[in-house]
Amino acid sequence: MPTTFPAADPETFEERLSAFHGIGRWSAVNDGLPWKPAPRSRPHVWRYPVMRSFALEAAEFLKGDAAALRVITYANPGHPDYEAACGHLYAGLQALKPREGMTCHRHAASAIRFVHEGTGGWTAVDGDRISVGAGDVIVTPGRQWHEHGNDNDDGLVIWQDLTNDPLVSSLGASFFELHPQGTHLKSTPARDSLACWGGLLLPDTGRRHRESPLAAYPWARCREALDAAARAGHHDPYDGVLLEYANPATGGPVTPTAGCRLQLLQAGEETLKHRHTGSVVYVAAEGTGTTCIDGTDFNWAAGDTLCVPSWAEHSHKNGSTTQEAVLLSVDEFPALRALGLYAEEPAE
Amino acid sequence: MPTTFPAADPETFEERLSAFHGIGRWSAVNDGLPWKPAPRSRPHVWRYPVMRSFALEAAEFLKGDAAALRVITYANPGHPDYEAACGHLYAGLQALKPREGMTCHRHAASAIRFVHEGTGGWTAVDGDRISVGAGDVIVTPGRQWHEHGNDNDDGLVIWQDLTNDPLVSSLGASFFELHPQGTHLKSTPARDSLACWGGLLLPDTGRRHRESPLAAYPWARCREALDAAARAGHHDPYDGVLLEYANPATGGPVTPTAGCRLQLLQAGEETLKHRHTGSVVYVAAEGTGTTCIDGTDFNWAAGDTLCVPSWAEHSHKNGSTTQEAVLLSVDEFPALRALGLYAEEPAE
Amino acid sequence: MPTTFPAADPETFEERLSAFHGIGRWSAVNDGLPWKPAPRSRPHVWRYPVMRSFALEAAEFLKGDAAALRVITYANPGHPDYEAACGHLYAGLQALKPREGMTCHRHAASAIRFVHEGTGGWTAVDGDRISVGAGDVIVTPGRQWHEHGNDNDDGLVIWQDLTNDPLVSSLGASFFELHPQGTHLKSTPARDSLACWGGLLLPDTGRRHRESPLAAYPWARCREALDAAARAGHHDPYDGVLLEYANPATGGPVTPTAGCRLQLLQAGEETLKHRHTGSVVYVAAEGTGTTCIDGTDFNWAAGDTLCVPSWAEHSHKNGSTTQEAVLLSVDEFPALRALGLYAEEPAE
Amino acid sequence: MPTTFPAADPETFEERLSAFHGIGRWSAVNDGLPWKPAPRSRPHVWRYPVMRSFALEAAEFLKGDAAALRVITYANPGHPDYEAACGHLYAGLQALKPREGMTCHRHAASAIRFVHEGTGGWTAVDGDRISVGAGDVIVTPGRQWHEHGNDNDDGLVIWQDLTNDPLVSSLGASFFELHPQGTHLKSTPARDSLACWGGLLLPDTGRRHRESPLAAYPWARCREALDAAARAGHHDPYDGVLLEYANPATGGPVTPTAGCRLQLLQAGEETLKHRHTGSVVYVAAEGTGTTCIDGTDFNWAAGDTLCVPSWAEHSHKNGSTTQEAVLLSVDEFPALRALGLYAEEPAE
Repeated sequence: MPTTFPAADPETFEERLSAFHGIGRWSAVNDGLPWKPAPRSRPHVWRYPVMRSFALEAAEFLKGDAAALRVITYANPGHPDYEAACGHLYAGLQALKPREGMTCHRHAASAIRFVHEGTGGWTAVDGDRISVGAGDVIVTPGRQWHEHGNDNDDGLVIWQDLTNDPLVSSLGASFFELHPQGTHLKSTPARDSLACWGGLLLPDTGRRHRESPLAAYPWARCREALDAAARAGHHDPYDGVLLEYANPATGGPVTPTAGCRLQLLQAGEETLKHRHTGSVVYVAAEGTGTTCIDGTDFNWAAGDTLCVPSWAEHSHKNGSTTQEAVLLSVDEFPALRALGLYAEEPAE
Repeated sequence: MPTTFPAADPETFEERLSAFHGIGRWSAVNDGLPWKPAPRSRPHVWRYPVMRSFALEAAEFLKGDAAALRVITYANPGHPDYEAACGHLYAGLQALKPREGMTCHRHAASAIRFVHEGTGGWTAVDGDRISVGAGDVIVTPGRQWHEHGNDNDDGLVIWQDLTNDPLVSSLGASFFELHPQGTHLKSTPARDSLACWGGLLLPDTGRRHRESPLAAYPWARCREALDAAARAGHHDPYDGVLLEYANPATGGPVTPTAGCRLQLLQAGEETLKHRHTGSVVYVAAEGTGTTCIDGTDFNWAAGDTLCVPSWAEHSHKNGSTTQEAVLLSVDEFPALRALGLYAEEPAE
Repeated sequence: MPTTFPAADPETFEERLSAFHGIGRWSAVNDGLPWKPAPRSRPHVWRYPVMRSFALEAAEFLKGDAAALRVITYANPGHPDYEAACGHLYAGLQALKPREGMTCHRHAASAIRFVHEGTGGWTAVDGDRISVGAGDVIVTPGRQWHEHGNDNDDGLVIWQDLTNDPLVSSLGASFFELHPQGTHLKSTPARDSLACWGGLLLPDTGRRHRESPLAAYPWARCREALDAAARAGHHDPYDGVLLEYANPATGGPVTPTAGCRLQLLQAGEETLKHRHTGSVVYVAAEGTGTTCIDGTDFNWAAGDTLCVPSWAEHSHKNGSTTQEAVLLSVDEFPALRALGLYAEEPAE
Repeated sequence: MPTTFPAADPETFEERLSAFHGIGRWSAVNDGLPWKPAPRSRPHVWRYPVMRSFALEAAEFLKGDAAALRVITYANPGHPDYEAACGHLYAGLQALKPREGMTCHRHAASAIRFVHEGTGGWTAVDGDRISVGAGDVIVTPGRQWHEHGNDNDDGLVIWQDLTNDPLVSSLGASFFELHPQGTHLKSTPARDSLACWGGLLLPDTGRRHRESPLAAYPWARCREALDAAARAGHHDPYDGVLLEYANPATGGPVTPTAGCRLQLLQAGEETLKHRHTGSVVYVAAEGTGTTCIDGTDFNWAAGDTLCVPSWAEHSHKNGSTTQEAVLLSVDEFPALRALGLYAEEPAE
């Protein structure tokens, strides 16, 4: 092949190159190669009363089959076209009316759900049905048949989906399938996942489930664990008393891409500032507070959803000097660690 | 070097070779290279009332400093000179008199302890002191300072040590050290290991403890887990309802060399026969039964210690048609798996 | 909170919701939740003579500092605005003129480079400089200082960058830094990475490098390995003789997110069709052929770059009945496997 | 159960207890619970000319079937009854006469072999036959059918077996089996393990062989790697230039229990003293030298076998001021690391 350099015509270069699906990297580098992470997601707080009201309104005009995806998606203001609350984390709010249920389905994405209200909710993974109520965290592993519903005759169940859907779609790995029979609840007694996996002993299977085999983490035990950790002196300067919902089969995160944590801010506590790669979506579970993100204060109260984009400097402050505040969060740390891309530093 | 073959003198060969620390492999192969595992350990049952009586007697004549190692070692009849109950597992019985305590020490070996009797026992790992009572399993990781005692004014505490001492010594890796101050109990409130590690959430440390950070597994919760697993339908054809004491930080065994399990035999249950590499020492925790080992029946009742040598064919039978029986066991499976030497097969 | 359902106004619902950064999931589900992967990337072939000509032309009008990013980015026709050749894989072509060099820099992304032409190229990772020539594969681990250049007085060096830049940016984990001194080549003899890591023995460091410590894989040895594997009967029905550039410290892929492979199609060979999650960018290294992607044939000759999007059905055919063809490829499989999202199936 | 303490009779205690297979731990603790490792193995050097002469003599009177185990076992002087060279490492010397071969067999133990003399040796793992000669290291994974022989019409082949037999037997996991047909050499061309696994690329199998898939490590390449590492500046203060024979599928040791290393002492070099858990058996491959073990000097010359017991302080000295010395060694480090029992420290 000749090595003679062609005559240069910088004026028309980009246009000619574009016809062959090329781009001069020098022209695009500011977007593609930042000096530090430049996520499109912006910090934001979604108010629970507002989003809840929309969820309830939608329940009035979407019924029957149309109700299956009656979820209010939280769309980050930085990318209104891209259905993610922050980074590659999806968040959405779903109200289940009395006696409603969702068709059995499965997908490659794995889901973490936080129950905001109600007591008669149920979820079934692989046909094993369990009851859930306010404060519970539900884990639905990818690729497993699951279905949900509300068993009440008159009470609502409202929960929030926190999933890795955007990541899975972005990686070209999204599969979705409806169960051919619409349901496959087992008639036999359920294999109670809390009984089997939530104790100090494990079924001696030798299997190492990459997603938590625990279908639900009951609020009472989790809240109690937070108090116990506080009494035992566990404390993180950036996050207060911080515990991770653990996959009992591995001691690791509940899913291979997204982790879930619960943290307690003592009355009056204000944490130190830090930043890290990986987005975090917080749901305020108790109390009120303020999270300062890249210099701006974002207030939150129980039920609200807050997001902190990758590499944003942030610190948390309990809004009360007399009561504890509790934040639940879902993060992208497991994915970033698996790929060797996790980084963290204290604020300068 | 010359390749001429020296004149052969088979008669004196072994003797001449021996002077140079050589052995003709052909002369020794029956011992060293069996066609299948030929452990020196033999099946055996140690009766609790008998061994307990010796432990109590020793407590009468060994006091003060001499009491520190006042443990009745269970020595396998197959190798009375080698202090192991079976294979490379040590078992011993220790009675702590009221107000007795042991000097703080540490060693490379890791220990699993099962409390036979009493309620006012205590154990401290790295200065954090917790109370233990009958049925509890205590895990003492290798290389950590620990101490134990009996807080009662008049009641006995009796527990059984189940350790990997023989393996550690055999591998030339045994270290033992007394604490220079004799004790290092912390004056601050203890970091309660059950509160921190026994829930559904874990301290977000990212650390992966190879030995269980849970200092003790309380009997009530473990026994309950067994019932729950039974209700959920967990059942192993060779072992009944079988659960493993889990390291919450990894979902794996409580130590890197020895595992600990609890199994329930339903009233009247008789399991199938199998065999596997790795020795097992069983302590009957509840009920009575018979274990058939290589064709011979060994009866046991609560408190008794039974051992099954590597590769011995065995099955268990509950001795009662109306009551459950429970066996606690310590095994060498983690070591064998780590070395690629675990094998298992159903009986022919 | 009240559970009265608000009056429904479906007509204005989306608009009102949008003001609060919400979206009705039912309105967007076709994009966000496909029944199977629906990547935006499309199959495409970039012709080497065309792209090379642009690279040479750019070399005429971008000089000095401006030359640092004088790379022709291959932009997938499915997303001309997003600088990726396929999925989250970046590909770009760079011509280094005689005596040119690039300023020392480092970034979070890791790079795999394939040398198309020339013999006097050099690359330095952490100051250790090695020579590279046509056919060599260069691995530059993320976060390590590196620099490159062309030592020739008159010959060109042309290589192709194949990196995980888009993935790293997409995850909000992109960092880029210029070396304060512009260069940090060591004056001491280089630690020759091929000598240290390319043999049958490894430095006894106990370290497990997640990215290959081998700075370059010389073409002659790689091509020879392909022949040897062919003689030894290694054959994959979908890919012919397929070998992976291995990280000698782990036996795994050269980086934690992207793998690199070399495959041989025998004269006349046509492989079976399959599909898998994860994008692949192929660079034809030898011969000619046709890759059938979702029913459409794409021809290629040595130097051309071809991409196969996630989950596209594909098979390869050697274009010659007398000569071998060789494809080098970079894939996203390590990332997908780490996240539990790899899936593969034969064509129906 | 009564808690009355029985009347104490210390005089007869041990004897009575012994009848019930118990031992007072206080009486035995000096053996069983040392303050630091107290291996039974002692440092020792076996002279090659002496052991070789015995191997040749045995070849004169053991022929045919009797020749199958015609190996001269190196028995440590510290435990002449226990067939191990040091700790749980076996070493033995075997001379194969012209045209001799060994029946195909397999066992749970894995073997590392070092060829002392000859060029026409062969070994076959799973039917794939390769030639070996002086200096080569052969790896025979556990549980795989293998056979060996000498193809020469008149030359001897002498090699040394270095295996984990004692460990496997000690753990009750030893299996041995003769192939029903006596041989299962394949008639097809061998899958050349060096070609497939010895390059920079690996067959893309995704399998992670725990034992090296490389049947042999040729001396020329290994010796060259040592020189390259020396030029690249690799140097260990306790061992000179030290490389590990690597399992190409994992980057780890060649077997899960025993590692193999090659080290170069520069002319005149004397290393620093250290100690570690885990036995090491050295075979001098080149040159002469002295190893100081716990204060005593042990001289060695090429061919000699030297052992260093666990936790013994040692340093090496090249015996020549003009020529390099090379030591091959087999160690127990992988087993100790897998069990969490590896420890190391510089000499005080």
